[in-house]
Amino acid sequence: MKFKEISGSIVAPAGFLASGVFCDIKKLGTGKGSNKGQKRDLALIVSETPATVAGMFTTNQVCAAPVKVCVERMKKGTTQAVVVNSGNANACTGKQGMTDAREMVSFTERALNFPKDSALVGSTGRIGVTMPMDNVRAGIIEAATLLGSTAEHAEHAVEAIMTSDTKSKQIAVEFKLGGRTVRIGGICKGAGMIQPGMSATGARPAAFPHGGLHATMLGFITTDAAVDAKVLQAALQEAVANSFNRITVDGDMSTNDTVLVLANGLAGNEKFKTKNSKLKTFQSALNHVCLELAKKIVRDGEGVHRVVTVRVNGAKTVQDADAAARAVANSALVKTSWHGGDPNWGRIIDAIGYSPATVVEEKIDIGYSTVGGKKILWSLKRGQPTQATFKQLCAAVAPTEFELHINLNLGKANAVMYAADLTEEYVDFNKGDVTDASSLGG
Amino acid sequence: MKFKEISGSIVAPAGFLASGVFCDIKKLGTGKGSNKGQKRDLALIVSETPATVAGMFTTNQVCAAPVKVCVERMKKGTTQAVVVNSGNANACTGKQGMTDAREMVSFTERALNFPKDSALVGSTGRIGVTMPMDNVRAGIIEAATLLGSTAEHAEHAVEAIMTSDTKSKQIAVEFKLGGRTVRIGGICKGAGMIQPGMSATGARPAAFPHGGLHATMLGFITTDAAVDAKVLQAALQEAVANSFNRITVDGDMSTNDTVLVLANGLAGNEKFKTKNSKLKTFQSALNHVCLELAKKIVRDGEGVHRVVTVRVNGAKTVQDADAAARAVANSALVKTSWHGGDPNWGRIIDAIGYSPATVVEEKIDIGYSTVGGKKILWSLKRGQPTQATFKQLCAAVAPTEFELHINLNLGKANAVMYAADLTEEYVDFNKGDVTDASSLGG
Repeated sequence: MKFKEISGSIVAPAGFLASGVFCDIKKLGTGKGSNKGQKRDLALIVSETPATVAGMFTTNQVCAAPVKVCVERMKKGTTQAVVVNSGNANACTGKQGMTDAREMVSFTERALNFPKDSALVGSTGRIGVTMPMDNVRAGIIEAATLLGSTAEHAEHAVEAIMTSDTKSKQIAVEFKLGGRTVRIGGICKGAGMIQPGMSATGARPAAFPHGGLHATMLGFITTDAAVDAKVLQAALQEAVANSFNRITVDGDMSTNDTVLVLANGLAGNEKFKTKNSKLKTFQSALNHVCLELAKKIVRDGEGVHRVVTVRVNGAKTVQDADAAARAVANSALVKTSWHGGDPNWGRIIDAIGYSPATVVEEKIDIGYSTVGGKKILWSLKRGQPTQATFKQLCAAVAPTEFELHINLNLGKANAVMYAADLTEEYVDFNKGDVTDASSLGG
Repeated sequence: MKFKEISGSIVAPAGFLASGVFCDIKKLGTGKGSNKGQKRDLALIVSETPATVAGMFTTNQVCAAPVKVCVERMKKGTTQAVVVNSGNANACTGKQGMTDAREMVSFTERALNFPKDSALVGSTGRIGVTMPMDNVRAGIIEAATLLGSTAEHAEHAVEAIMTSDTKSKQIAVEFKLGGRTVRIGGICKGAGMIQPGMSATGARPAAFPHGGLHATMLGFITTDAAVDAKVLQAALQEAVANSFNRITVDGDMSTNDTVLVLANGLAGNEKFKTKNSKLKTFQSALNHVCLELAKKIVRDGEGVHRVVTVRVNGAKTVQDADAAARAVANSALVKTSWHGGDPNWGRIIDAIGYSPATVVEEKIDIGYSTVGGKKILWSLKRGQPTQATFKQLCAAVAPTEFELHINLNLGKANAVMYAADLTEEYVDFNKGDVTDASSLGG
């Protein structure tokens, strides 16, 4: 399904407002105020009317205070505001961290004159440093006065949630639903410590698909569709399972990964209370928004030069397909070969072989296509090199984005991962600045 | 237990001979012969009398032909010669690969006038290229004529098994056993694609400790002790479990990982037929040889600047301890911070949290010591930063080798991993040379 893209991201749906300010969360001491030429670091996303809400949260057992506060508040099923900061993850901050996260939501509620329990919170940045609450309070007050619904307001909110991101990540789509015009908008951030594995409660599913591998990614989605909270949660779970939970930059899962969707119903469609055929359109649109946002994270990953879609087909089980795709997507040797433009199938089949997936060497096919391309150039068929020339294979892996096709030929289960290469820039960026004690936890 | 180190590595024990020659396995076309100034690429290790043998082999499901041939031949429990080549892994080479591996052993047997089924084989190098058998046969014939028992002979054999190794890795120890002088010697190779997970048959144990993560490492150990094959296998399993299976350079497990130990009994000790108190001394010596060889691999890992011993204590189960240690040891963000000399505990606790191990954030301690040091500088206690200063912590992670101590404080199980940092040099080395089609499979 194709969706019309529109501008405005999170404020494109009716009744949503946003703002972003600089309140010096990193305590650089360069002064506060949104007009000082500093990168904004605190955002507000607000619905004019109470919205149903759904969320997906990191399954990391070391889980930040803002995530815990959101999980607690998901039970209510409605919200009206989200306060988000960059510069400090409020993770590993103990009791003070929980006190601060709770104050962030209650202070936001008061600043907006909203009722108790009507706000949520997201944080990203350094680990292990308590929040500079004076700055946060000043930021919330200013952000509340600057709320608006122009594309510029959304831009300010996106800027405020970025950390090592080099590009702002946003999208909005518009479609018809029973005669009504419905919009879904979203923003997200994330560039390193990226391999999210999120669940509705932050708890690990019994069959945790990737034994815990996984940077903070934050995603905030707004829609003016009318959707019951439970239906919205199920829809978000499906969308995240096929988007944010399918990306990896470096294989590290953050303590703060969070995706929230707010649905305020102002489009005036008949409220989705159960799955029905119209929900299918909404689901497709939500899937599209989440997938496009997730891919933007990989493309803007730290030091990333190439983005590779790893498609594993023909596995015995979905778990096997997932395991094989993640092994390839996270192999240091495969990722460096992608960086070098080297069609090294030896490293790929090696990673498939050591993955937890059941595989048979003599059945494995490995090939390449353009993004979305139907024509696959096979480098390996049934475990043996094909007649494809080295030159042809090099050309297939030369583009900045391509697809890697792996067929295990053992069953019918499939999985896809959106992965990145591993570059000298990634290492250089992450080796840290030991002259800066403030980097301790981040 | 301390063991006296002696020279000669694999030829230090009585009755062992070695040689290494250049036979142009990579088909560089620069001419054959061991005296042409080329790096040697084929080694022979020979016992003057039949030796009992034990082996541990990669659990990668994509498993090279030489590994398969060795596994088949382990049943016999005795051997007299090992032929090893670098430059070609004979992996993913289908039926031809098996034919070639079998010919390598049978040709070696004939060249040495040994009986059928008395030789074993190991290979490392490119994947997916069939063996240049004319060159191999010429190499075996020359190597057979050059066998000898001086330290120089062992040096030639080590050189012949090296690939991206920058240093030769060898050791020999001598100790007393019931009045007899016993020696154990060993050589190994490996620098990238290193996270071995070996078992006696190449089959994965039911509770496979690391779901398959893991470059080729090859290890060849000789001893003049008299040891029954089954006792020797059990001893090797214990030694490998605490050495080669505890190292990681890049988290990639090879298709060819192999460790063999040959015991020819010429020391004249009473043969170990069951576990007894004297075996304890032999076991300790074998453990020492394997651990020292394994650590040499990590220190010489591709692009490695720092080696970190990751000690996880206080886990609920050994599987949990292992999982937490491997998550930390293989985290791209932790490894880059080690490279930067950055004592970033945030990334460490993040990796512990996403590992499959059960952990509780508020119970986790993280600290540092010198190698083997008793004094631990804690950076985190019970999930919270200590009073240790940033300067103190930077000093703790500044040496080229240090120990990272993690206490989960949940139980009594422990695990250790010998790990490496991730550097720009690793990426640069592995991004491949796309002008060289011969790199396709390697």
